[in-house]
Amino acid sequence: MPVNLHAPSQGDLRAVRGVRLGIAEANIRKAQRKDLLVMQLAPGSRVAGVFTQNQFCAAPVVVCKEHLAAKNEIRALVVNTGNANAGTGEEGMRRARETCRKVAELLDCDAKQILPFSTGVIMEPLPIERIVAGLPTCVDNLEEDNWLNAAQAIMTTDIVAKGVSRTARIGGKEITITGIAKGSGMIHPNMATMLGYIATDAAVSQQALSAMICHAVNRSFNCITVDGDTSTNDALILIATGQADNAEIADEKSADYAALRDAVTEVAMLLAQAIVRDGEGATKFMTLDIQGGRDEAECRKIGYAIAHSPLIKTAFFASDPNLGRILAAIGYAGVDSLDVNRIKLYLGDVLVAENGGRAPSYQESDGQRVMKEAEITVRVELGRGAAQATVWTCDLSYDYVKINADYRT
Amino acid sequence: MPVNLHAPSQGDLRAVRGVRLGIAEANIRKAQRKDLLVMQLAPGSRVAGVFTQNQFCAAPVVVCKEHLAAKNEIRALVVNTGNANAGTGEEGMRRARETCRKVAELLDCDAKQILPFSTGVIMEPLPIERIVAGLPTCVDNLEEDNWLNAAQAIMTTDIVAKGVSRTARIGGKEITITGIAKGSGMIHPNMATMLGYIATDAAVSQQALSAMICHAVNRSFNCITVDGDTSTNDALILIATGQADNAEIADEKSADYAALRDAVTEVAMLLAQAIVRDGEGATKFMTLDIQGGRDEAECRKIGYAIAHSPLIKTAFFASDPNLGRILAAIGYAGVDSLDVNRIKLYLGDVLVAENGGRAPSYQESDGQRVMKEAEITVRVELGRGAAQATVWTCDLSYDYVKINADYRT
Repeated sequence: MPVNLHAPSQGDLRAVRGVRLGIAEANIRKAQRKDLLVMQLAPGSRVAGVFTQNQFCAAPVVVCKEHLAAKNEIRALVVNTGNANAGTGEEGMRRARETCRKVAELLDCDAKQILPFSTGVIMEPLPIERIVAGLPTCVDNLEEDNWLNAAQAIMTTDIVAKGVSRTARIGGKEITITGIAKGSGMIHPNMATMLGYIATDAAVSQQALSAMICHAVNRSFNCITVDGDTSTNDALILIATGQADNAEIADEKSADYAALRDAVTEVAMLLAQAIVRDGEGATKFMTLDIQGGRDEAECRKIGYAIAHSPLIKTAFFASDPNLGRILAAIGYAGVDSLDVNRIKLYLGDVLVAENGGRAPSYQESDGQRVMKEAEITVRVELGRGAAQATVWTCDLSYDYVKINADYRT
Repeated sequence: MPVNLHAPSQGDLRAVRGVRLGIAEANIRKAQRKDLLVMQLAPGSRVAGVFTQNQFCAAPVVVCKEHLAAKNEIRALVVNTGNANAGTGEEGMRRARETCRKVAELLDCDAKQILPFSTGVIMEPLPIERIVAGLPTCVDNLEEDNWLNAAQAIMTTDIVAKGVSRTARIGGKEITITGIAKGSGMIHPNMATMLGYIATDAAVSQQALSAMICHAVNRSFNCITVDGDTSTNDALILIATGQADNAEIADEKSADYAALRDAVTEVAMLLAQAIVRDGEGATKFMTLDIQGGRDEAECRKIGYAIAHSPLIKTAFFASDPNLGRILAAIGYAGVDSLDVNRIKLYLGDVLVAENGGRAPSYQESDGQRVMKEAEITVRVELGRGAAQATVWTCDLSYDYVKINADYRT
């Protein structure tokens, strides 16, 4: 079960002026489930995106990058679940472009103004005919107040839908920010994609929007890991429709920029954490807070070394404070010339290790008290600088393997 | 259960002239089990070692490196199981040195001529008094034909003891090579150390011996992973006692060198593979053969990306050919400018993927046939060079987590 995570209700997700969403049950992989989404954007909307670094990236990712790079005015996004259109070669590219063409026809714009996204099974042909057949339904029910349906329509094996809204007062106007995401609930071991869509009705320059998404992703989607697998399809999209009539935010040093940036970043962070809370088999939500590094990169290295250790993850599942394993992970993280005698390790509020060994004050019972909690913070103080990084992850449970092992049996 | 691995019997492990082994039940962590080993080396023996890169390395590793760097004539090794003496700070260093002093007293040599090793629980004080109390027993039963007891005495949570012997005819003399190892059977999540000791009676120069261990380790212990955790205590030691009366092997281009190097490497490889076969919860032994890379390093990166993916490892446990996951791992391995269209992926003898997608000839039934086997080879052809690397690993099973989760319950 997801860790302290509940699906949003209709009222939780506020409409964003200039964004209309329509969904369909297109039978892409399963019958009678929402699996196709069209998100139509008002003219003048600006769009920025960040995508997976995986070199085996999926066909729709390639097409998205093309259409964004060409600085086309993006008028719609189309998302299908059930099939990732990844590892599908040239034919996959053709079908991704075909999807864009069909959406453009229905919305009377150019195929280059459409961004396609797919999530689901890898290495199977995209059922383009089902998608094409489902698109008119999506267009027929385009509505602004349709975010919850959209959040449901992009789920693969997520247990709960993920969405959050925030408002901010900017330039005398009330601004809405609403985001939805789906995670890598890898109940089928070949399904794994992180998709995030955040939209605001604020008016923002393209350059400021691009700066804003980088700021947000580095503090959200780039800080999480479930099992270290980088999907072929990961994408985060930030949309600004400009319908709020605020003076366009272009100065990245302005208070308006900072206010919107922080609200967008909070939405992104909550969505990213929701993905971890809904990680496959997750029973614990862990915050790894690495402090006192020379730079952020080395703090991240250590955070990810801890987060990716199956041994540490299973120990957390077992509520077993085998904390020497964390010291070992710090040691093999690949950070040069660490002075282990300066490192302090805290589990929650408990000092576990210092001076290269167990803290004299540490007692097993204190460690176990913290390990029993569903939300656990591990703090590492490196004592060699002022840099900091946070990584969020979940434990590795019996169910993670059980679910995978039982997949076909 | 270990994958196609059986404990050696007494006859399998040949004595090596110039190496005497003695063991004791010192109650270091558990009663009535062999947990202390002394390995005495004849005068003139040469010793080379490679050690963990973990910066949180254990006290005995620090002492070993000191004693080897000082070019002392090493006269004995002492190994305890049950406690790793890692994450133990200054006191740990003191106890490692004290262990050396006591062995030196008993063998009438200098403490600097002793190499200490520890494996077991991290971050707990080394029970030095038990070790000191057990050492005389070890010395009392020093024998050349005692390798099987030694292999058993260094086990932690290994299910079976690991040892292998080979002979070679070199310079007209019969040479014996015998090795023992213990693995990271991480049934207790804070136990994990790979130790390997390989001895030959051949006469080899120090420089040639150092070259030989590097060659051997890069084709054995550096090619395996169970769960990606690099222990604080890992060590491989190569001993040449020179008792075989062969002309000293010093020329690294000589046929004698090549013959001994290859025999030593085979022993190291079999020991390393035994560690994987006995990996915690292992049900499958996987050989990852990465070919056609620009250099060995990028082949290794891809091999380890596949070997460390919990998703791939669980899919192998489930005998579930979710092979898109392997493409994804290749894509995120961190190898620049991969042309995914040139990559070929084989599962056993079955071509799975080519031209950026699933091979037209691939059939699920073929993939499943291979996946059901206990020994599986995954071959990746990168098509961009002539370099190659092999990684051996095991699957991630239900038991891996179950064992860890049940540790304290």
